[in-house]
Amino acid sequence: MKASELAVQLGGVLEGTDVELFACGGLEEARAGDLSFCKDPKHVKLVAETKASCVLLPPDWTLGAPCAIIRVEDPNHACMKAAALFAPPAPVRAPGVHPTAIVDPSVKLGVNVHIGPYTIVEKNAVVGDGAVIEAQVFIGEYCEVGAGSHIYPQVTLREGTKLGKGVILHCGVRLGGDGYGYNTTFENGLPKIEKIPQLGIVELGDGVEIGSNTTIDRARIGRTYIGPMTKIDNLVQIGHNVKVAGYSGIIAQAGVAGSTQIGSGCLIWAQAGISGHIKIADGVQVGPQAGVPQSLDGSIKYVIGTPATSMKDMAAVALAPKLIQKTRAELKALKAEVAELKKV
Amino acid sequence: MKASELAVQLGGVLEGTDVELFACGGLEEARAGDLSFCKDPKHVKLVAETKASCVLLPPDWTLGAPCAIIRVEDPNHACMKAAALFAPPAPVRAPGVHPTAIVDPSVKLGVNVHIGPYTIVEKNAVVGDGAVIEAQVFIGEYCEVGAGSHIYPQVTLREGTKLGKGVILHCGVRLGGDGYGYNTTFENGLPKIEKIPQLGIVELGDGVEIGSNTTIDRARIGRTYIGPMTKIDNLVQIGHNVKVAGYSGIIAQAGVAGSTQIGSGCLIWAQAGISGHIKIADGVQVGPQAGVPQSLDGSIKYVIGTPATSMKDMAAVALAPKLIQKTRAELKALKAEVAELKKV
Amino acid sequence: MKASELAVQLGGVLEGTDVELFACGGLEEARAGDLSFCKDPKHVKLVAETKASCVLLPPDWTLGAPCAIIRVEDPNHACMKAAALFAPPAPVRAPGVHPTAIVDPSVKLGVNVHIGPYTIVEKNAVVGDGAVIEAQVFIGEYCEVGAGSHIYPQVTLREGTKLGKGVILHCGVRLGGDGYGYNTTFENGLPKIEKIPQLGIVELGDGVEIGSNTTIDRARIGRTYIGPMTKIDNLVQIGHNVKVAGYSGIIAQAGVAGSTQIGSGCLIWAQAGISGHIKIADGVQVGPQAGVPQSLDGSIKYVIGTPATSMKDMAAVALAPKLIQKTRAELKALKAEVAELKKV
Repeated sequence: MKASELAVQLGGVLEGTDVELFACGGLEEARAGDLSFCKDPKHVKLVAETKASCVLLPPDWTLGAPCAIIRVEDPNHACMKAAALFAPPAPVRAPGVHPTAIVDPSVKLGVNVHIGPYTIVEKNAVVGDGAVIEAQVFIGEYCEVGAGSHIYPQVTLREGTKLGKGVILHCGVRLGGDGYGYNTTFENGLPKIEKIPQLGIVELGDGVEIGSNTTIDRARIGRTYIGPMTKIDNLVQIGHNVKVAGYSGIIAQAGVAGSTQIGSGCLIWAQAGISGHIKIADGVQVGPQAGVPQSLDGSIKYVIGTPATSMKDMAAVALAPKLIQKTRAELKALKAEVAELKKV
Repeated sequence: MKASELAVQLGGVLEGTDVELFACGGLEEARAGDLSFCKDPKHVKLVAETKASCVLLPPDWTLGAPCAIIRVEDPNHACMKAAALFAPPAPVRAPGVHPTAIVDPSVKLGVNVHIGPYTIVEKNAVVGDGAVIEAQVFIGEYCEVGAGSHIYPQVTLREGTKLGKGVILHCGVRLGGDGYGYNTTFENGLPKIEKIPQLGIVELGDGVEIGSNTTIDRARIGRTYIGPMTKIDNLVQIGHNVKVAGYSGIIAQAGVAGSTQIGSGCLIWAQAGISGHIKIADGVQVGPQAGVPQSLDGSIKYVIGTPATSMKDMAAVALAPKLIQKTRAELKALKAEVAELKKV
Repeated sequence: MKASELAVQLGGVLEGTDVELFACGGLEEARAGDLSFCKDPKHVKLVAETKASCVLLPPDWTLGAPCAIIRVEDPNHACMKAAALFAPPAPVRAPGVHPTAIVDPSVKLGVNVHIGPYTIVEKNAVVGDGAVIEAQVFIGEYCEVGAGSHIYPQVTLREGTKLGKGVILHCGVRLGGDGYGYNTTFENGLPKIEKIPQLGIVELGDGVEIGSNTTIDRARIGRTYIGPMTKIDNLVQIGHNVKVAGYSGIIAQAGVAGSTQIGSGCLIWAQAGISGHIKIADGVQVGPQAGVPQSLDGSIKYVIGTPATSMKDMAAVALAPKLIQKTRAELKALKAEVAELKKV
C-alpha cells in the first residue's frame, strides 16, 4: 500500500517520499518497506536509527526522521489500525461441509457450520451453530463442539470430549488422550506393568482458548475440566482429572499433574510445574519455572522457585553467598581481637 | 442412566429420588447429574457438601447425604464399575482398510489390521496382525508396526521406524525426526553451519506407550532405542541415540539429550532434564524439574534440583538462609562478649 | 548386507565369520546383527564385551575381538560410511502434485515442486522451485515457501507465514498460531477477558531448521522473525514478536517469551526460559534450564540458573551450605576461646 493511501486511511498527513509499505514493525526491528511509529520524543534516537521506510509521528514532533513521515494524533493507535490493513486477510470459512470431509450420518450439525477438507467427524458427535472446524481435524465419537467454537487444522479430540461455546483450539491441540496411569506389581521378581483404564473425558467451559500443541488428558473417571474463559498457551500439559475453576491463565510449557485443582483467576507462568493431587487457591500466581510440590492456600499471592516459596524467601537463598562472606569477614576480625586479648 | 438401573447393575440398594445420572466425579468436583462415592466416615463433610446427585456409600453409613444414595459393599470399586458404564463407548476399529487410506501395494499387512481414513502407509512398510492404525496417520517407508499395536490419529513415523508388539502411540507423537546435529566452521570469519546426516532409526520395544505430542529423534547412526514396557508421557523429548533399557517411566515434559543411556526401572519425573552422553543407573529416580549434568551410578536413588543432588543436599541449600541468620546472631552475641572483655 | 560385501565397500579386510549385518551401533549398545567400531586400544574392554557381530578395527589392532573383524584405516569414518549403507533409503519425493492434494488454482507453484497426498495449499500461497511439501501438510492463504525448502508431514502454516530458501520444518511444527494476548477489565467486579487481535505473521530466514512439534506464534503486529541459519530443536516455544538475529541455536523444550530479541550466534540450551521484552546480546549462551528475567548485555558469556547468573555465582549458592558449616565450626571454637578468657 502506498504511504499516501495509508495516510488517507489513517486521517494523517504524509511528509516526504510516497513509498510502498508492506508491514508494521517496532522502530528497532523495522526494515525497508515497513511502517513504524513513535509518540514520545525520548525515543528520538530509535527514530533516527530506524530502517523503516515511513514512521507515524505526532503533529508536534520536531525532531525529524530518516524516512517518510505520516503525522497522526495517536501514532500507537494508528499503527494498530495500519497493522490490520497490512495483515493477511483473515481466511473466510464459509458455512458448508467440504466434499472430502468424512462426517458420519449420525452427527448432529448445527446451522452455519464450516467443516474443512480432510476433516473427520465420527459418529454421534454434535457440532453447534456457527462452529468452524478447519482442515484435517479429527473429532472422535460422541464429542460435542459448542456453538461458535473455532478449531484450527490438525487438532484431535478423542471420543467423548466436550467443548463449551466459543472455544478456540489452535493447531495440534490434543484433547482426551489417555492419562498416564499404570499399576506395577511383581511376579517372581519381574515387574508386571498394567495400564489403568482411562474412562473419563475432557470438558472445556465456554470461551476457553488452547494454544498450539497443548495436551490435555482425559480423566481416569469423571472429567478433566477447564473452566470458562481460561486461556492456555502453547505446549502446556494438563494431566488427568485436573480441574481449573475458570478465568485463569496457564502460560507456555507449564505443566499440571493429575487430579490437581486450580482456583479461579490464577495465573500459572511459563514452564512452571504443579504437582498432582494438590489445590491452588483462587487468584494465586505461580512464577515462571516455579515448581509447586504442595497446596497453596493463598496466603502467598505469588510464588517462585523450586520448591515454590515467596519472593522474599527466594531472595534470601540468592543472597546467602554474600551474607556468608560478610559473616566470615566479621568472624575473622573477631578472631584477631580475641587473639590480641589472649596476648594480654 | 437412572439411579435405580445403576443400583441393579452394581448390586446395590437405592435410597431417595431415582435421578438421572451421566458421569462419575470426586465428592468435591461432582455436580448435578454426577454419581460420587465415599467409604470413610472421616470424609462426612465432603459428603454433606457434595453437589453430586447420587452418592455410593457403604451399608453401615449412618451420616446421611444431601442426595440420593446407593448402598454397596465397596463404594470405590463400584464407582470404577459405574465409570465404565458412563464412559463413552470405546470406538470399534474393525479390521479393514478405509477406502481413503493410501497404502502402497508393497506394504505387508497382517491379518485383522485396521487402517483409518486419510492414513498413509508408504512402500515396504510392515504392519503386524491385529494392529490398529487410526485416521490421518503417516507411516513412512520401511517402517515396522508390531502386532497388536495401536496408533491414534495424526501420528507420524518417519522412514525406518520400528515398533515392537503391543505398542501404543497417542495423538501427535513424532518418531524418527532428524536429531539436532550441525557442524559449524568459520570461513573468512563467517560461520558456516552444516547439517550432520541423521542416518539411524527409532526402535521401540514391546509394550511401549508414548503420550501425546512426544518427540523421539532418529539416531545419527544406529538406533534411538526405547526398551520394552517403558511408558512415556506427553510432550517428552528424547534426543538422538538415547537408549532406555526398559521398564522405565518418563513423565510429561521431561527431556533426555542425545546419546544418554537410561537403565531399567528408572523413573524420570515431569519437566526433568537429563544431559547428553551420560548414564543413569538402573532404578534411579530423577525428581520433577531436576537437571542432571552427570552420570548417576545409583548410589543416590532419588535426585532432585539443578544440578541434581540428594534430597539432603537440596534441603541444605534451602536451609542456608536460616542457618546464616542463626550464625550471625551468635556472632553478634560473641562480639558483645569480646567487647566486654576488652573493657576489663 | 554380508560382512564380506561390506568389507569390499569400505576397502577393508574381513577376518572371521562372514555374518549378515543390519545396522551400526556403539560398542556398548550394539547387539547381534550390528556392526560396531573402535580405533583406540584404551577401549579394549568395551570391544571384549560388545555384543556386535562385527567390529571395525584399525590394521594394527592386536587385542582381538569376540566377533568378526573388518580392518580399515579409519574405523570411525568407515562406520559413518557403513551407516549410510545400512540406513533406510531416503524417500524419493519426485516433482509433482499428488492427486489427493488440494492446491488452490491461485497458488503459484515453482518448478520441480513436490506436494504430497492429503496436503492442502490455500489460495494465494507461493511455493518456490524445488520445494518439497510432504503428506498431510496445511499451508494457509498467502503463505510463502522458499525455494528448496522441505516440509515434513503434518506441519501447519497459518495464513501469511513466510519461509526463506532451504528451510526445513519437521513433523508437527506449528507456525503462525495466535500469540497469547488478552485484555482483562472488570465490570461490576466480574472479569471480562478480551482477545487481542494477532495481526502479524511469522517469517523464517534462509536455512532455518525447526524441530518436531515446535510452535512459533504470529506477531501481534509486524512479524515474529527467525533469522537465517538459526536451528531450533523439538518442542520449543517462541512467543509473538520475538526476533532472533540469525546463526543461533535453540535446543529442545526451551521457551522464549513475547517481544524478546536474541542476538546472532547465541545458543539457548534445553529447557531454558527467557522472559519477554528483553534482549540477549550476540554470542551469549543460556545454559540448560536457566531462567533469564532480564536483558543480558554480553558481559557474561554463559549464564546458568534461575534467575540466570554466572557459573561462579551459581557455584557460590551451591557451596553455601558447606561454607556455613565451616563458619559455624570456627565460631564454636572462638566461643570456647572467649569462654576460657572470661574464666581468667
